[in-house]
Amino acid sequence: MRVDLGNALDATPGVSREALERLDRRVADAHERIETGRAERDHGYASLNLPETTDTDEIRTAVERFDDVATFLTVGIGGSALGAATIDRALGGEVDAYFLDNVDPERTTALLDSLDLSRTAVNVVSRSGTTAETLANFLVVRDAMEEAGADWTERTLVTTGERGNLRDLAAKHDLPALSVPEGVPGRFSALSTVGLACAAVQGHDLDAILAGAADEADRLAGSLFESPAYAYGAASYALERRGALVNAMMPYAESLEVFAEWFAQLWAESLGKDGVGQTPARALGATDQHSQLQLYRAGPRDKFVTLVRPRDRDDSAIPTTDLDGLAYLGGGSLGELLDAEFEATEASLAAAGVPNVRIEIDRVDERGVGELLYGMEAACVLYGELADVNTFDQPAVEWGKRAARGLLGADGEFPEAEAVADKRRLVID
Amino acid sequence: MRVDLGNALDATPGVSREALERLDRRVADAHERIETGRAERDHGYASLNLPETTDTDEIRTAVERFDDVATFLTVGIGGSALGAATIDRALGGEVDAYFLDNVDPERTTALLDSLDLSRTAVNVVSRSGTTAETLANFLVVRDAMEEAGADWTERTLVTTGERGNLRDLAAKHDLPALSVPEGVPGRFSALSTVGLACAAVQGHDLDAILAGAADEADRLAGSLFESPAYAYGAASYALERRGALVNAMMPYAESLEVFAEWFAQLWAESLGKDGVGQTPARALGATDQHSQLQLYRAGPRDKFVTLVRPRDRDDSAIPTTDLDGLAYLGGGSLGELLDAEFEATEASLAAAGVPNVRIEIDRVDERGVGELLYGMEAACVLYGELADVNTFDQPAVEWGKRAARGLLGADGEFPEAEAVADKRRLVID
Repeated sequence: MRVDLGNALDATPGVSREALERLDRRVADAHERIETGRAERDHGYASLNLPETTDTDEIRTAVERFDDVATFLTVGIGGSALGAATIDRALGGEVDAYFLDNVDPERTTALLDSLDLSRTAVNVVSRSGTTAETLANFLVVRDAMEEAGADWTERTLVTTGERGNLRDLAAKHDLPALSVPEGVPGRFSALSTVGLACAAVQGHDLDAILAGAADEADRLAGSLFESPAYAYGAASYALERRGALVNAMMPYAESLEVFAEWFAQLWAESLGKDGVGQTPARALGATDQHSQLQLYRAGPRDKFVTLVRPRDRDDSAIPTTDLDGLAYLGGGSLGELLDAEFEATEASLAAAGVPNVRIEIDRVDERGVGELLYGMEAACVLYGELADVNTFDQPAVEWGKRAARGLLGADGEFPEAEAVADKRRLVID
Repeated sequence: MRVDLGNALDATPGVSREALERLDRRVADAHERIETGRAERDHGYASLNLPETTDTDEIRTAVERFDDVATFLTVGIGGSALGAATIDRALGGEVDAYFLDNVDPERTTALLDSLDLSRTAVNVVSRSGTTAETLANFLVVRDAMEEAGADWTERTLVTTGERGNLRDLAAKHDLPALSVPEGVPGRFSALSTVGLACAAVQGHDLDAILAGAADEADRLAGSLFESPAYAYGAASYALERRGALVNAMMPYAESLEVFAEWFAQLWAESLGKDGVGQTPARALGATDQHSQLQLYRAGPRDKFVTLVRPRDRDDSAIPTTDLDGLAYLGGGSLGELLDAEFEATEASLAAAGVPNVRIEIDRVDERGVGELLYGMEAACVLYGELADVNTFDQPAVEWGKRAARGLLGADGEFPEAEAVADKRRLVID
């Protein structure tokens, strides 16, 4: 991963080279804390050890029996789906991969109706085994498989914690089961069993993904000027402190569209707490030049733009044309056009003084994806250290979960559900 | 469309009932300006007349010859794709609809390789006929059709302005051609030829879409308390003035996922100028409760959340289960679970004092989509009036376009391209 902070230096808000050098003393301290956390496998910090602790043989073995499937359906939500979806979208593959990560009945029904369930394998992912959305969907999927005459016990993989419902279910029906790693919050689990099972079904080189991540891990150092991941994390933090409350993540590759969503969870859920944080906005180049760019360039000076691209990609020639005024396109390629758009957008933001950071990987392949995911995770952990937040918890999610359980009549006391009935109204219809 | 502002009144930032009443005097003035603009068919304001000016017969006739296609491929970018994609995702259909709205060579190649081009019709959409991304893609698509032995002249629809390349192409090859309406910026064109051609191919009831929009138009009035669209626009503006620089658009329906993207363009490109504007963040319920909600509830007080849902939807029962602690789910339905999550999230935000607005439509059907799209457009126009911006231009997009053309060697003088070469660098790799 290669990070270029040049266009963040003189912008508004901007962070000068001198300011980065001052911040670098705190980066050194933070790096030390991070390394200690990793060595002691502390909650969260253990995530940064995944390139060495993830057992790819275990993952390949768990999915071995699915080598004939046409469809691989991951049932999970949030971090239980987004890492796997990011890798799948980035790397593609012969198997149709779907992610049931919502409880919309119309979507679930339409998807199940469209699949040949006798050629579908299911991976149900929940650390606790009690995530309402995931378990509800799994019950529906299992029922549909039974109705279709497909033996769900032959086609289900469980990814869960050491104990709980799903673990028991796996034991009872002799299902293959993968363990969610200890000390790794869901949003940091892309490089573990959670994120890699689908890639294994696709036949991707899991070791190359982890090798890319390990390369990025090796470059973590006590200075932001020596580590691309820390350079990005420190610059993001410094820009936020100077007013860039929004971080627009804009990859220039369709294959990285889901990566922007994954990043949004990583950033929002890790750093959005105690009244601080930086709001991730998901964008896509070049498409969003025709949608969001007007705002980024000319709107409030409360944001910076992260432009991501591969330095190399498969290209496709543009046929020559005699259409009026379009001769300049003919004989070129779509990739050249996309690169020109990338550089033009970057320069356009810079010319207007809007801070932007360029991130490049060599290619959207196994190695590149490993670098990018690990790099962003390490950047996020550093940012959390600099901002003095607990990067690895998500306390604000619990209240709503309890309210929903109360509304649905789960056993227990849920005073939160009563607040729902007290809703204040001012209706215009 | 039904708008409930109750949870925006006492929040932080919040807008009191009294403040809304004071603002309402300006709403009356703004409404008068908007009505005058509509009556005079002024640029932009003419968009709000589309429910009465769009000729659905013309659209149906233009796509008549495509009644046997398996795939309908729209080639366009920004507003030339997002409206059609929003309607298609909301309403579904038997035809596979794709939108080539980027110039990623890997995506374009993969898509074309996957299609049966002999059963594919193409709609190329560009008002000027010179949009680089759209025309480059169209040249590639046309070439692929020829290579596949499909007669592109039998399977191409052109949607463009009264003059230009594409108009000439249509005349030369006797292609059906739809006219982009006058005075309607791309992002406001969902309810015109631009947004409705794909829906016509799907056999949706175009008149019902426009009837839903017309209903919303009929309810525009000189008071925000009488018009749901204006209530939303005025409240969004008032909240922004009080510090809600981010508007998180969070529909609770997978079928409205693209709607959130469409909204993001509408809001960003219309209102993001002169150093002001409100940054749209695209979210999806319930999925993003496990991703963005932590930030929305506990992060900086710079945002409000728009929660959108249909009041009715097809539902799907959750099978009963003896899995430990999950009995409460069994016997219920996915729709009940999703509604409980909606109300729990709304209450969770309210309990934390985070402003949120509820928008409901009866159903995600033709009528409902018409209401929603028109309602948001009218809300946006009102917001622009209140904020004193030019809602209908997008000047900040031009600089980058010129730089890209210069980089690609188009005829003409493009000093912007030279700025690209001057890029400042601070590379960490």
